[in-house]
Amino acid sequence: MSRTRHRRTIAEVGEFGFLARLLPRLPMTRETVVGPGHDCAVLRCGRRKLLVTVDAVVENVHFKARWSSPRQIGRRSFLVNASDIAAMGGQPRFCVVSIGVPPRYSARSLLQLEAGIVDAATASGAVVVGGNLSRSEQLFVSVTLIGDAPRRLVTRHGARPGDRVYVTGTLGDAALAVERLSGRAGAKVAPPVLRRLLEPSPRVRAGQILADKGLASAMIDVSDGLVQDLGHLCRASRVRGVIRATDVPVSVAYRRACGTERRLALSGGEDYELLCTVPARHVKHLEDVRRQLACPITCIGEITRGRGVRIVGAQGGVVYESTGGYDHFRTPTT
Amino acid sequence: MSRTRHRRTIAEVGEFGFLARLLPRLPMTRETVVGPGHDCAVLRCGRRKLLVTVDAVVENVHFKARWSSPRQIGRRSFLVNASDIAAMGGQPRFCVVSIGVPPRYSARSLLQLEAGIVDAATASGAVVVGGNLSRSEQLFVSVTLIGDAPRRLVTRHGARPGDRVYVTGTLGDAALAVERLSGRAGAKVAPPVLRRLLEPSPRVRAGQILADKGLASAMIDVSDGLVQDLGHLCRASRVRGVIRATDVPVSVAYRRACGTERRLALSGGEDYELLCTVPARHVKHLEDVRRQLACPITCIGEITRGRGVRIVGAQGGVVYESTGGYDHFRTPTT
Repeated sequence: MSRTRHRRTIAEVGEFGFLARLLPRLPMTRETVVGPGHDCAVLRCGRRKLLVTVDAVVENVHFKARWSSPRQIGRRSFLVNASDIAAMGGQPRFCVVSIGVPPRYSARSLLQLEAGIVDAATASGAVVVGGNLSRSEQLFVSVTLIGDAPRRLVTRHGARPGDRVYVTGTLGDAALAVERLSGRAGAKVAPPVLRRLLEPSPRVRAGQILADKGLASAMIDVSDGLVQDLGHLCRASRVRGVIRATDVPVSVAYRRACGTERRLALSGGEDYELLCTVPARHVKHLEDVRRQLACPITCIGEITRGRGVRIVGAQGGVVYESTGGYDHFRTPTT
Repeated sequence: MSRTRHRRTIAEVGEFGFLARLLPRLPMTRETVVGPGHDCAVLRCGRRKLLVTVDAVVENVHFKARWSSPRQIGRRSFLVNASDIAAMGGQPRFCVVSIGVPPRYSARSLLQLEAGIVDAATASGAVVVGGNLSRSEQLFVSVTLIGDAPRRLVTRHGARPGDRVYVTGTLGDAALAVERLSGRAGAKVAPPVLRRLLEPSPRVRAGQILADKGLASAMIDVSDGLVQDLGHLCRASRVRGVIRATDVPVSVAYRRACGTERRLALSGGEDYELLCTVPARHVKHLEDVRRQLACPITCIGEITRGRGVRIVGAQGGVVYESTGGYDHFRTPTT
């Protein structure tokens, strides 16, 4: 019995199952304000607090070379990290880049990939300060991003019953693009939908405002899908999230492609929007700063006592009550 | 002509050729004390200076699963980074880990790999504060290590004509182990030689003493091979390094296997010793602190005017004058 369990593969245990076993074993220090298991670690550095996050994009897992230009791959590898910094209300500052590249890969493409990282970093106010290049059969780009923490730190922990649940921008476009691109050859993908997959825009400015003005009680970025990421937030805060499916914001292109169907908007990953909870007393204040966010923000539900995530349909009935979404070892994106 | 050049692969351009094209394109900020192209970046963080470095180990490039246990792979992935921090005299503090892992990899092995990282971090006074797990066909572990800079920063830049060249420990064991393991099945590798490959010990304490006491004018770790790494140091300092081949320290096991042959000690990589230059006026002081270093340190040559690296043989003649060593895209380790 014990032998059988020991031989289970990562695919069987799943990413989150693995992390649940790993995280309690990691030691902490006084300088670690927030440790592993969050969007970013928070470290004390003298009187400053630093955010640190790492994320990798891997060929044929997170991107396909025939869909994405080298520059887009580079941009994306930075932006998925900037999204983690945004989710804690921080400001990206420095990054180091670890690239694994097949020997046959063209030097010009690799320069373009690096240029994509530098472009995205510059646009976010960050600089590339170092890196490493390794030989590898499969192209991968792992970016570590260091940022400044906001004055008021926002984590996944602070949601309370009665808080409203908000999401920035629209959801589902990235998953829709993946579904179309993975289907029959010749399937059409509307350009704005494709752009959401290939060139995500992290909500750095919105995250800073939501954190610094004390509006968000908890925050996370939507990388694994709304249901799954809301699940993470609710688990950390020990509350239940109730979402009205019809209120989940989708793009015009998504509505044109999917009608009233919200499956991809609810469970598709890689939109890199921000999901946050706002105490009822701050909703008026949020309306006041709405314009400064540089993106739409929509109330999609509320936090109640309980656990898990509940999705309510158009008729008011519960259409979904579970966790779901994206696990790197179970549901391939591409 | 121009088209042909643009299509060159990374294997043809080589890692250092690629970096020579990339590095001038990277922007800097006021907070970047030392930018890309060094063992670590040095960042200003309030009144502190931080060192940041990243390095990846990739299956079948930097290790083979049949030679190394998961724990050894984990330890190694940390230690190669600690060696970069040691080369600037710093103290490892925080690390984040990006792992790419095949779905069929066992969860137990991955926990052991993580335990190897945590062990090595703890032994160096550092903690693991975050990470990321991706699906990947080939196992890779990319560690980003953040450290405290020493009061006196040592880089590759400060070597001057007249300085002595020193190296810690012994060289060549790791390359000898790779050569034996890659050869005919059944080739014997002495356990201390194998250990040097599988469980390198970065010279963190020695690096701190050499930096803080102002002994080393320039320093680098020997990861790509003595000739190549001395070449990097000499290029950065705009000087020539002259090495007496017979003075290069080797282990008893190496001498037993190779006799007076010094090829692997001169050009083999992955020993993770420190190579530094010491001004002649500090040689006496170095003798005084020798015992505190916790490892042997040997004078192997000196710095002169000129460029490049020169190796002098037993008879006093020049036996080698060039660069060489290890390029990830040209000379596979394994």
